[in-house]
Amino acid sequence: MPKISVVSNVLQANDAAAAENRALMQAAGVVAVNIISAPGSGKTTLLQQTIPALAEGSSAVLVGDLQTSRDAERLADVAAATVQINTGSGCHLSAEQVAAGLGELDLTGLDFVFIENVGNMVCPVSFDLGEHARVALLSVPEGDDKVAKYHTLFQAADVIVLNKVDLLGILDFDLDRVRDDIAQVNTRAPFVQLSAKSGEGMDEWLGWLRALRGH
Amino acid sequence: MPKISVVSNVLQANDAAAAENRALMQAAGVVAVNIISAPGSGKTTLLQQTIPALAEGSSAVLVGDLQTSRDAERLADVAAATVQINTGSGCHLSAEQVAAGLGELDLTGLDFVFIENVGNMVCPVSFDLGEHARVALLSVPEGDDKVAKYHTLFQAADVIVLNKVDLLGILDFDLDRVRDDIAQVNTRAPFVQLSAKSGEGMDEWLGWLRALRGH
Repeated sequence: MPKISVVSNVLQANDAAAAENRALMQAAGVVAVNIISAPGSGKTTLLQQTIPALAEGSSAVLVGDLQTSRDAERLADVAAATVQINTGSGCHLSAEQVAAGLGELDLTGLDFVFIENVGNMVCPVSFDLGEHARVALLSVPEGDDKVAKYHTLFQAADVIVLNKVDLLGILDFDLDRVRDDIAQVNTRAPFVQLSAKSGEGMDEWLGWLRALRGH
Repeated sequence: MPKISVVSNVLQANDAAAAENRALMQAAGVVAVNIISAPGSGKTTLLQQTIPALAEGSSAVLVGDLQTSRDAERLADVAAATVQINTGSGCHLSAEQVAAGLGELDLTGLDFVFIENVGNMVCPVSFDLGEHARVALLSVPEGDDKVAKYHTLFQAADVIVLNKVDLLGILDFDLDRVRDDIAQVNTRAPFVQLSAKSGEGMDEWLGWLRALRGH
């Protein structure tokens, strides 16, 4: 079964690189957070608001995108360092790519490395990057059926964040339906509702990050 | 190079199945339209409005999703037939899956088969399903940077549709930036701006479909 063995070799190589990434960051006292969402859920905007609120210059960002360095440019003012990783046609970051990105960073004095994965609710789920925690991000305009449809992403999350709650009154979105769907797949992860734009709910998100960091 | 040869075998098998799908629909006088977008761009809502406007019961829909049959249920009232194709962990439909779906349909008397691909801006792009035309769908809440970031999708499109334009006044979205980015990658495809919810712009979209059908 050659197809299966190729896939399993790819994942084995990825997992070995992920373990090295994790050990490297652990040794430097850095916490790595892997953020996964559909395109346009607001990963970059969330980080633009999160990093200064945690402490200016205390976090670095690795940004995955097929093309362009637009997200890295948006984050350059608030992050200690940003590395844009262009995946070409790849729909997820790999641990090897993250290892190369980490090689560009000085980890000394950093609290967090945020990994903004390629906008995709499927491919990134299978690839451990060496993160300490995984965020599944959803936004109100995407609709209230996404947890049921992409349950693997939400199952594997350490925290589930609903962004753009400032649009809850404007768009059709059944919050109870989302809560019910989350209860079916993940009873472990907190469910944080926020708007990176209005600031609503950001305290809970920042509190979760601080608790993860242990201070 | 075993990895590359596996990928190329997969695509060869897909393309052969796609050619058969196309020939089958051609013989039945049916036009197939493959709709690709991120999760939550409004593919299902667009089809809910499109099909009755074209002619009740004149179109069938093949719906791809990792899990659930929610989209097929939403379309059951307006389509002549709907087939839900669950891909499990697969981030796109394949031509073989579409062939199986077509096997469930009676093509006699149909004008269109709409193929609602898995919500994903990357994976579906490489897989010809046997469609006659490909729609790249984007929605305002996803942001104005998506054409540059996912240019392969927009490059391969026969029409580019911007949905949820009723939110243009509410959300930050630079329409000129999107127009400029489209001009860089695709000068062939019309750019249709609409709101499946408010009905704005639907006439242009319906006109494009009718022209594709040749009547």
